[in-house]
Amino acid sequence: MLKLNGNYLKMPGSYLFAEVARRAAAFSGAHPGADVIKLGIGDVTLPLPRACVDALKRAADEMGSKDTFMGYGPYEGYDFLREAIVEHDYAPYGAKIGADELFISDGAKGDCGNIGDIFSQDCVVAVCDPVYPVYVDANAMSGRAGDFADGRWDNIVYMPCTSDNGFFPALPERVPDLIYLCFPNNPTGMAATREQLRPWVDYANEHGSVILYDAAYRAYMTDPSLPRSIYEIPGAENCAIEFGSFSKTAGFTGTRCGWTVIPRALRRGGESLYDMWMRHQSTKYNGTSYVIQRAAEAVYSPEGQAQVAEMIGYYMENARVIRQGLSAAGLETYGGSDSPYIWFRAPEGQDSWSFFDRLLSEAQVVTTPGSGFGPSGEGFIRVTAFGDAARTREAVERIKSIL
Amino acid sequence: MLKLNGNYLKMPGSYLFAEVARRAAAFSGAHPGADVIKLGIGDVTLPLPRACVDALKRAADEMGSKDTFMGYGPYEGYDFLREAIVEHDYAPYGAKIGADELFISDGAKGDCGNIGDIFSQDCVVAVCDPVYPVYVDANAMSGRAGDFADGRWDNIVYMPCTSDNGFFPALPERVPDLIYLCFPNNPTGMAATREQLRPWVDYANEHGSVILYDAAYRAYMTDPSLPRSIYEIPGAENCAIEFGSFSKTAGFTGTRCGWTVIPRALRRGGESLYDMWMRHQSTKYNGTSYVIQRAAEAVYSPEGQAQVAEMIGYYMENARVIRQGLSAAGLETYGGSDSPYIWFRAPEGQDSWSFFDRLLSEAQVVTTPGSGFGPSGEGFIRVTAFGDAARTREAVERIKSIL
Repeated sequence: MLKLNGNYLKMPGSYLFAEVARRAAAFSGAHPGADVIKLGIGDVTLPLPRACVDALKRAADEMGSKDTFMGYGPYEGYDFLREAIVEHDYAPYGAKIGADELFISDGAKGDCGNIGDIFSQDCVVAVCDPVYPVYVDANAMSGRAGDFADGRWDNIVYMPCTSDNGFFPALPERVPDLIYLCFPNNPTGMAATREQLRPWVDYANEHGSVILYDAAYRAYMTDPSLPRSIYEIPGAENCAIEFGSFSKTAGFTGTRCGWTVIPRALRRGGESLYDMWMRHQSTKYNGTSYVIQRAAEAVYSPEGQAQVAEMIGYYMENARVIRQGLSAAGLETYGGSDSPYIWFRAPEGQDSWSFFDRLLSEAQVVTTPGSGFGPSGEGFIRVTAFGDAARTREAVERIKSIL
Repeated sequence: MLKLNGNYLKMPGSYLFAEVARRAAAFSGAHPGADVIKLGIGDVTLPLPRACVDALKRAADEMGSKDTFMGYGPYEGYDFLREAIVEHDYAPYGAKIGADELFISDGAKGDCGNIGDIFSQDCVVAVCDPVYPVYVDANAMSGRAGDFADGRWDNIVYMPCTSDNGFFPALPERVPDLIYLCFPNNPTGMAATREQLRPWVDYANEHGSVILYDAAYRAYMTDPSLPRSIYEIPGAENCAIEFGSFSKTAGFTGTRCGWTVIPRALRRGGESLYDMWMRHQSTKYNGTSYVIQRAAEAVYSPEGQAQVAEMIGYYMENARVIRQGLSAAGLETYGGSDSPYIWFRAPEGQDSWSFFDRLLSEAQVVTTPGSGFGPSGEGFIRVTAFGDAARTREAVERIKSIL
């Protein structure tokens, strides 16, 4: 008798952003004239940089001619893109990563979830709390999370990130096999320093754990002293896998391109994790679209770099407006200076969903309730800087007006 | 102590096509002047249809303007593409599939492998023998194959497809939970009739099995009486998942787009398999690139249909040249009339790799040894029709000259 993957059946109800969208739609349905501003889901709104559009069109023309047509590409991605990423995103920061340690993919989200496939189902997973839901959900679906009750999985190591510890986790007592870290963090908007990351690399190397480092928001760091990559920390090449993305760096949320770094030095049980992931990708993936890889390469051209800097500057001005506006209104506010996310405490001890509902009904602003990211997110709200500048200013004024 | 996925460590050596490429490269290295013709890997060579190139460029321009920019898309794909597929590839054949039963993906290969995630690790998998290696490898990596010895996994149900049974499998005695079928078949090039498929649908419905039907080569069927989709068989909506692809239909091997159909009626253990796959995709996937979906949609425009028909006609003329040429030379030849693959028996009882090596060294033609697709492929060779027409004719003459 055919059996299903029972782990799927343990999953709690709907995905956080689906519930946010449902409540927003219900409100708009009940108030047809309402002018709702969405600062909830972390999707970008500015167009793709012109350099990327032009590269995409040039690549499309290449595909249209027999002499320049590209069929199946390398599972790990084309060298032109792997080399461009290394040259611009690793080498300048002293991270000794080679192009032959990168896998190009259709986005970091899939890789963050699928990377678990090369590890045993018995591995113990640690996550920050609050956390991007994909890390937990993907591992729960693979049977690593145990059972779900009262907002927690009983086999996940939750590492609280609260105002008490500056939203940076303490080393866990129970040693995890896999440790997800994301900095600048989604949802708290806090970046990590070298001094904060170093003990984690040492801890992982001491215990044989593997750090899964999500650097999807690195382009939003403004403080030059902050590390852009886990590989700026000595020893990380022996214990860390890093995920990168063009989604937020260059507006690729709907275009889809990212990468995963697995250093050749990273081995466990005598096996190369690079080789294991290559086995995964060659069997379950068929390479990232050639034209999309050409569009991503253009991010690193001089024009692309200028256009991306302008785009990020636009969003970071939104972040400043939100952060300063909400702080000035007396809200306890975090993030937004090295990250596109602002994390603030709901006033008067209100819980996340209550204040989410109030912001929606009284200010017509859609946010994301912090409790949706984990137990320690309760009482917080996440706002994103990816909106239109004028609408973002308007949203901040509306929020202030209801406090 | 961190443990790896032990199933990966059981995998036998290199992937078939990697070994083919290795031997071809070694030959070229040893004979620098040799004019090698490649009819091995099933990659296309004609450019992307002009309608697709134009659609891709238009979509790129949309991405470059704030008013028409597209961010995160639906996990299941855009309705414009799902509806176009249903209108052209299902409705005309009487297959009652709705657009809301389709998931757009970046290719059928990933879906064929990943679909196992929604089923229990205990499921028994049946495959045709010979078979496209991905079905077996993906399930072996998930722990469903048992152990590998003497070219076989001890927990896989192999269904021999030989000249004795017309390369169509008999219903297995041991009832499998998951049954991979691929028609027109890779590698044998044989298509299935309605009469052949009907007992499989009945068998799956009787036993609660799920058929995983790979229809990636459907566009190459010329006989109008042959079913294009498993859903032309009554009852298939209760037992079958189907995979479709633009790779061979429209030259998308390097552009990447495909789809998976999961009928709403398909339930097991009270659960909707559509809903379970949606859970998978929403957690481990972030939608297919908007611009690529627009390029795929253009396949169904009047110009796109004409250009695709011309492209397939070109390849099928290659198939005819190969089939007739090798048959006339006295080789026992199959496929190639409703498929881009030709499957022939090596002369004089030679084994696959021996004749592969002879074809390479004496005729300078790269093929694929049948034994690489499974034990029952021993003694056969696969040749593809995706090459240049003149080079294909040349290859056939060379093969004939060494017989």
